[in-house]
Amino acid sequence: MKNSGKFEPDWREDVPAEGSYRSIFKYDPKKFKHPNAAWYEMFKQEFGLTDEDFAKRQPGGDEQVMLDHKPALSNDQVNTFFSIVGKDNVSADGYSRVKYGHGKSIDENLGLRKGIAGKAPDLVVHPRNKQEVGEIVKYCNSQRIAIITYGAGSGCVLGMRASKGGIALVMKTHLNKVLAVNELNQTAVVQPGIIGPDYEAALNNAPRLFGAKRSYTCGHFPQSFELASVGGWILALGSGQASTYYGDAYDIVLSQEYVTPAGIIKTHAIPGTATGPKVNDIMKGSEGSYGVLVEATMKIFRHMPGNRQRFAFMFPSWKAAVNASREIVQGEFGLPAVLRISDPEETEIGLKLKGFNDGILDAFLRLRGFKPMERCLCIGTVEGEKGYAKHARKMASKISRAHGAMSLTGYATKQWEHGRYSDVHMREDLLDYGIIIDTLESGVSWENLHRLHQGVRSFVKSRPGTICMTHASHFYPQGTNLYFIFLMRPKDQLEFFQFRRQVVDRIIEHGGSISHHHGIGRMFAPWMEAHLGREQMEVLRALKKHFDPQNIMNPGGNLGLDSPDEADQATNQSR
Amino acid sequence: MKNSGKFEPDWREDVPAEGSYRSIFKYDPKKFKHPNAAWYEMFKQEFGLTDEDFAKRQPGGDEQVMLDHKPALSNDQVNTFFSIVGKDNVSADGYSRVKYGHGKSIDENLGLRKGIAGKAPDLVVHPRNKQEVGEIVKYCNSQRIAIITYGAGSGCVLGMRASKGGIALVMKTHLNKVLAVNELNQTAVVQPGIIGPDYEAALNNAPRLFGAKRSYTCGHFPQSFELASVGGWILALGSGQASTYYGDAYDIVLSQEYVTPAGIIKTHAIPGTATGPKVNDIMKGSEGSYGVLVEATMKIFRHMPGNRQRFAFMFPSWKAAVNASREIVQGEFGLPAVLRISDPEETEIGLKLKGFNDGILDAFLRLRGFKPMERCLCIGTVEGEKGYAKHARKMASKISRAHGAMSLTGYATKQWEHGRYSDVHMREDLLDYGIIIDTLESGVSWENLHRLHQGVRSFVKSRPGTICMTHASHFYPQGTNLYFIFLMRPKDQLEFFQFRRQVVDRIIEHGGSISHHHGIGRMFAPWMEAHLGREQMEVLRALKKHFDPQNIMNPGGNLGLDSPDEADQATNQSR
Repeated sequence: MKNSGKFEPDWREDVPAEGSYRSIFKYDPKKFKHPNAAWYEMFKQEFGLTDEDFAKRQPGGDEQVMLDHKPALSNDQVNTFFSIVGKDNVSADGYSRVKYGHGKSIDENLGLRKGIAGKAPDLVVHPRNKQEVGEIVKYCNSQRIAIITYGAGSGCVLGMRASKGGIALVMKTHLNKVLAVNELNQTAVVQPGIIGPDYEAALNNAPRLFGAKRSYTCGHFPQSFELASVGGWILALGSGQASTYYGDAYDIVLSQEYVTPAGIIKTHAIPGTATGPKVNDIMKGSEGSYGVLVEATMKIFRHMPGNRQRFAFMFPSWKAAVNASREIVQGEFGLPAVLRISDPEETEIGLKLKGFNDGILDAFLRLRGFKPMERCLCIGTVEGEKGYAKHARKMASKISRAHGAMSLTGYATKQWEHGRYSDVHMREDLLDYGIIIDTLESGVSWENLHRLHQGVRSFVKSRPGTICMTHASHFYPQGTNLYFIFLMRPKDQLEFFQFRRQVVDRIIEHGGSISHHHGIGRMFAPWMEAHLGREQMEVLRALKKHFDPQNIMNPGGNLGLDSPDEADQATNQSR
Repeated sequence: MKNSGKFEPDWREDVPAEGSYRSIFKYDPKKFKHPNAAWYEMFKQEFGLTDEDFAKRQPGGDEQVMLDHKPALSNDQVNTFFSIVGKDNVSADGYSRVKYGHGKSIDENLGLRKGIAGKAPDLVVHPRNKQEVGEIVKYCNSQRIAIITYGAGSGCVLGMRASKGGIALVMKTHLNKVLAVNELNQTAVVQPGIIGPDYEAALNNAPRLFGAKRSYTCGHFPQSFELASVGGWILALGSGQASTYYGDAYDIVLSQEYVTPAGIIKTHAIPGTATGPKVNDIMKGSEGSYGVLVEATMKIFRHMPGNRQRFAFMFPSWKAAVNASREIVQGEFGLPAVLRISDPEETEIGLKLKGFNDGILDAFLRLRGFKPMERCLCIGTVEGEKGYAKHARKMASKISRAHGAMSLTGYATKQWEHGRYSDVHMREDLLDYGIIIDTLESGVSWENLHRLHQGVRSFVKSRPGTICMTHASHFYPQGTNLYFIFLMRPKDQLEFFQFRRQVVDRIIEHGGSISHHHGIGRMFAPWMEAHLGREQMEVLRALKKHFDPQNIMNPGGNLGLDSPDEADQATNQSR
């Protein structure tokens, strides 16, 4: 297809066919975002490609799903599930089994594009309430049937793979309501399968829906906001883009109820207690391996979008951006909601994506001494009460200027807000032409930030034709995260998986955590013991043994709980 | 003794004799604070006493400690401890065994006053470093010798009682240093036995001691600040008086190192990770039952005392004070550091203690419609950056006024700051004349606050001659605490213990937590299962079994981990 005289790839904009593999792995069947001309030029240049290479697409997973292995459950067992949730809420067809047995990792995407479904659950079960979950867990425990809990399916670390068959327990179908908003306590009681937009809409509309006096917000806006469930936020320890102010998912959960093979855990919704180790916190991050989250009482926040303050700065260097952001979150004048600093490579590529790379802005920046591949973009917002937000923005600006930054006004931040949930949809366009985009994120202390950044980058950039964009976007007075985005056109999948494995090795060697907010799943499980140490892993395993002595909850290597020979080898193609 | 013509009891001001019981139970041998005349009058009136009743004191524990039961350890065992820590760091004398086998609970105080030492460890061991702790734990585990970890001895819930003999492991003697201050990470690495003032002084003097550019503060100022150790803060889940801003002890610990029978747990000092359930948090609140905390990396804060803003208000009612404080912490304009609201009875008695009860202030307050036994005092401070602090104080004042409050200026708050650590010393004066002062504190949601307050008060006040002061002093957007202070002159100890037991029953019945920030120990252990439920207790027990399969760490009923027949019955005189 041609556009303004130049060749442009024929980016797909068709809704995947019903029943196709593509309808499973595409983030949202109906949403599209295409690389712009500048990015397309960048791909050709970085990866040594020509327009010719974009004339023909890679396999796109358009075939109908075919699953050859039959469910391994007996008729009696299937009938029992029928009797618990009703026939309408059980599916045994191949498509459902593949759909609810896959998340959104690049690994699963690449497999499904070739029609390789790998492991699938024997049966898909959609419970209608927590009592049914209780019956299901009890029954599965008595029959040793594995349970993989599927929230909304946005996980990207192979956390919901039916390594040992069994059932997929789908939460998004029915367990997707806000049950109560309590204004006095500023809490909402929610079911785990609700996705971000529905949860946020319910809180925003609390006056109409719950007779509340005010509107509320959930405070949690990960890039996967439109796709992920509240249960997933909690169980994989997500962080939203405004986490610097609102806290990580870990922080915004007040109490929870779980169904486990060892019984029901229901914690008190009391914010401060000194009654021994907090079981409420022990359950967070358990990724379906200890039990099924059936209800959560979440902290909520006043919804005051009119108070939002925006800022954006260009810093002369990464060092300056890091130092300024550290000063901002350590300054005790309030915290920004969004704060994001991009390293030089991400800054350039970001400017390209927005079309700012060779226009008047770039010329102006150069003139002012902000050089390409040195300068770093920072965007931010402040929320909360009006005076608080204004003051914190003012202070953040003051600190930024003191570190040599130039204000870009809040415009760049608005631009970013506009694309914040849609950029992910470019992944399919890239994969359609063999370009892999994948991410790794790591928690890191301030002291260790540059060492980690340089350690990972020096490895990544030693491979010719590899783009590596890095940003920090979740800030704490004690540190931040580094989010690495890789783009490459590997000669084959194996090359990519080997590469990613080596990057993870570098992250650990350089003192980062294996995951900042994507969880562990089966993807990072092989590194868990090396990262946390045997003693900590044995604690997690002791808890596993307590909650799930028969190992029916998400078995097969999740979180590194199983021994290597019990773990799902197929998922470790990347190993 | 006479003062201005009126009788005044002969409050003791002698430093307890060396080797005496009194030298053990008195908070600080050299610190004194006496009830003033107004309080003395109140005692006589409330408890139906005359000056005559204050002519003669109760037994004061002035005898020399005598311990008749010999250490149950073999010579070989004692020699092993000699070889690990050196002879100078082991004591077997009766005084040391009693001293390091007792905390500061009223129960222990009453026993020691009569020369009843109860259980005592066989040996007192003062390790010099964490390696020695490692050797000790390993050896004790092999020999099944119980270990009670003694931080600084300020605990008040029978948490360090040598129910099964064994050794007291004293942390305050040598493990009392700040090892490092990291300005980039804004953290301090500390040993667990350091007490508040030493820790705070080290941080305040970070420029001189650690070559830092700034001064820092620990942010944790419990009433026991001068007596308690950092390890105790973490293990009993303390809350400081400025917790509304700085967070509870739970929140200000970044990472920890423990020696357990199952090995060493050393967590990463990375503020945000998604690597499964957080073992770092699992260890907090374990009260010596899982292992020995040997090092902690704490979050620290900029020390900016010049920025402190103070406010104080009189509210027309408890309801108004509660509503205003809720609005303040939910308002998202920043958080006060100290925030404390006193209920009507505490307000009156507080005014009495400060001598404001019948002067011009009282007259003025009455004139303005703030009636005794309705009006409620609120004090507060805001810390942090100057503009932030000013703005938050302004907003807190605005909300308070909107709820009918009258400003008392910051003077009342300064008064309170002045007495904040010394009021505790009045306890000995009262006990010298048979008056018991004891406290219970409970975490509570906003929704449940009035129910809990009324439920407890209606029971307490049904006993004639019982003073019950209540305040809320640790605030969260989702709730607060209620801190109940009882004063009574029971006919005997048993009456008091029965009374306290019934109050705890009322707390649980009315939806409070058993403890907000004093921990559980053996005192509240009998309620743990009823409060948390069997399923949560089984989680704590599974962890216990993992860390300490031989049950050598603080055995005998602590935290409710042991079965009732394994628990220390003697400590349950209150049961």
